[in-house]
Amino acid sequence: MRDKQRKNGEFEIISRFFAPLAKAEPGAFALTDDAAVLVIEPGHRLVVTTDTIVAGVHFVDAGRPDRIAAKSLRVNLSDLAAMGAKPRAYTLCLALPDNIASDWVGRFAEALAAEQEVFRVTLIGGDMVATPGPLTLTLCALGDIGEGRELRRSGGRPGDVVYVSGAIGDAALGLRALRGKLPAIAKHHRQALVERYHFPRPRIELGLRLGGLARAATDVSDGLVADLAHICAASGTVAEVRAAEIPLSAAGRSVAAAGAEWIPAVLTGGDDYELLFTAPPASGEAIASLARQLKLPLTAIGRLREGGKGKKSVRVVDEKGAEIAVSAGGYRHF
Amino acid sequence: MRDKQRKNGEFEIISRFFAPLAKAEPGAFALTDDAAVLVIEPGHRLVVTTDTIVAGVHFVDAGRPDRIAAKSLRVNLSDLAAMGAKPRAYTLCLALPDNIASDWVGRFAEALAAEQEVFRVTLIGGDMVATPGPLTLTLCALGDIGEGRELRRSGGRPGDVVYVSGAIGDAALGLRALRGKLPAIAKHHRQALVERYHFPRPRIELGLRLGGLARAATDVSDGLVADLAHICAASGTVAEVRAAEIPLSAAGRSVAAAGAEWIPAVLTGGDDYELLFTAPPASGEAIASLARQLKLPLTAIGRLREGGKGKKSVRVVDEKGAEIAVSAGGYRHF
Repeated sequence: MRDKQRKNGEFEIISRFFAPLAKAEPGAFALTDDAAVLVIEPGHRLVVTTDTIVAGVHFVDAGRPDRIAAKSLRVNLSDLAAMGAKPRAYTLCLALPDNIASDWVGRFAEALAAEQEVFRVTLIGGDMVATPGPLTLTLCALGDIGEGRELRRSGGRPGDVVYVSGAIGDAALGLRALRGKLPAIAKHHRQALVERYHFPRPRIELGLRLGGLARAATDVSDGLVADLAHICAASGTVAEVRAAEIPLSAAGRSVAAAGAEWIPAVLTGGDDYELLFTAPPASGEAIASLARQLKLPLTAIGRLREGGKGKKSVRVVDEKGAEIAVSAGGYRHF
Repeated sequence: MRDKQRKNGEFEIISRFFAPLAKAEPGAFALTDDAAVLVIEPGHRLVVTTDTIVAGVHFVDAGRPDRIAAKSLRVNLSDLAAMGAKPRAYTLCLALPDNIASDWVGRFAEALAAEQEVFRVTLIGGDMVATPGPLTLTLCALGDIGEGRELRRSGGRPGDVVYVSGAIGDAALGLRALRGKLPAIAKHHRQALVERYHFPRPRIELGLRLGGLARAATDVSDGLVADLAHICAASGTVAEVRAAEIPLSAAGRSVAAAGAEWIPAVLTGGDDYELLFTAPPASGEAIASLARQLKLPLTAIGRLREGGKGKKSVRVVDEKGAEIAVSAGGYRHF
């Protein structure tokens, strides 16, 4: 099962392509030891999250290592952002099929280096194995947070305003575009949607600034309704969302203009990696001010309400207050 | 790509089977939040390692979740042991093929629960995804170590005695037995070898006790020669190993008795997950005493020597001092 020839090649690959990605963290020992050793600042805590992505399931084209590097890192950083943590380091496990292009790893490492620059994180360890299956990547991301600053899903209270950052639905519409399932829209809109699908934008700065301001937070990975249902379940509330308030991008609006049947895709599509959070009404001005500072829309889309057992946790209503049917089903990582 | 029905099933699986594995760590939030938050004791450091195992590559039979749970956890704990760290927590990413047995996850979680009891670690997060490929598991293990206590590969000095714990070669011979490539040996010996392949024994207690005693350490995962070569490369030394001193189990000896052609398998086989370490000759008595206390053989098998560029880093010699040809090729995780 173990091919020594191949393994010697992997030593070279690690030292050539991956060790340079670890140089900012002395405790990574240039990826030459059995494990990494990290110093955590006094009064700070370690935040840990992990996600696996699989070719053909979570990304479409294994031939684009830049997209895969971006997606695998960013989905994990989005979880750190949702906790209010500052990204610090990550481990990377690669299961590589035999038919991977010979220059794939080099291109992937180059893309990761660029990602590390943007998000200021450092590779500290990992594993590289052969698989008879599809390309599979698992990242475990480690973040830093001051004691008591974490944004939990469970802090929401009845009466809280529900906010979401950026625009919702683009990634799900982008995936539909890639599958040829979108109505005809302008080419630049189509490109913008596909771009959002390939390159999520973890809202790290926002997460850091929401500590002490938001009561509950999560990132929108499973879909707006499903993720709000997670907050409701953890907080013991229900929520009402006004569909007309959900922020769409210009590209998203151009799809919505093609027909109302697109609204459920926006509400349940997932992969947005925006932050969804709640705050008391009195924080409205502080949140508006934060949105201006970050140049990032933070839109009030609804309210948390007193919850009761058996009650449907998230109700979406149109402009007349009539309920829109959506499934709250979601996708889960734990 | 995302199947909501399936995803709702996964919510239930996580809350039913995996959340109970997380209950010992309050910062795991019962696997209901975006990430875990861990407190690191003042004066302590975090030790991080990760490994992926793939059905058909790293284990033979996906139908035995008990073995897979044991192997995936233990190979990671062995890396923590090799650093001298105390295991604390781990994340788990599962990529599950469609054809996995319906009760697989339950049996796997049950086996993990038993492993957690033995090794005193707690699940703190993870991910569960579908894959069109083989069952693939990635664990990231987190350990705790007092400042300055870590066992590096780089601490070896010329003149150090090279030690190895337990017995070497059993796992590699066990894998050969599973493949029908071993000579006829007694049934209980065959079973013992196969058992060692399926159930590595991470030497955690030994690792904890070697702090301040060993100068360099690693675990034997790639094979004795390859792993000693890692210590040599990191320490800037070469090593000489006396083949006759390498500790074999009774089962291993019964294979060796069948012919000298088995020696290379023992030297390069890998998967032993014993600790390989070096210490100055003056520590001999302390190490002998530690072996007695732990009831674990710690055998001197050779010496580190002054190294030079281009020199072969590990020489294995027979009882007459003649070199035995082995490949130092090894398998790598970083």
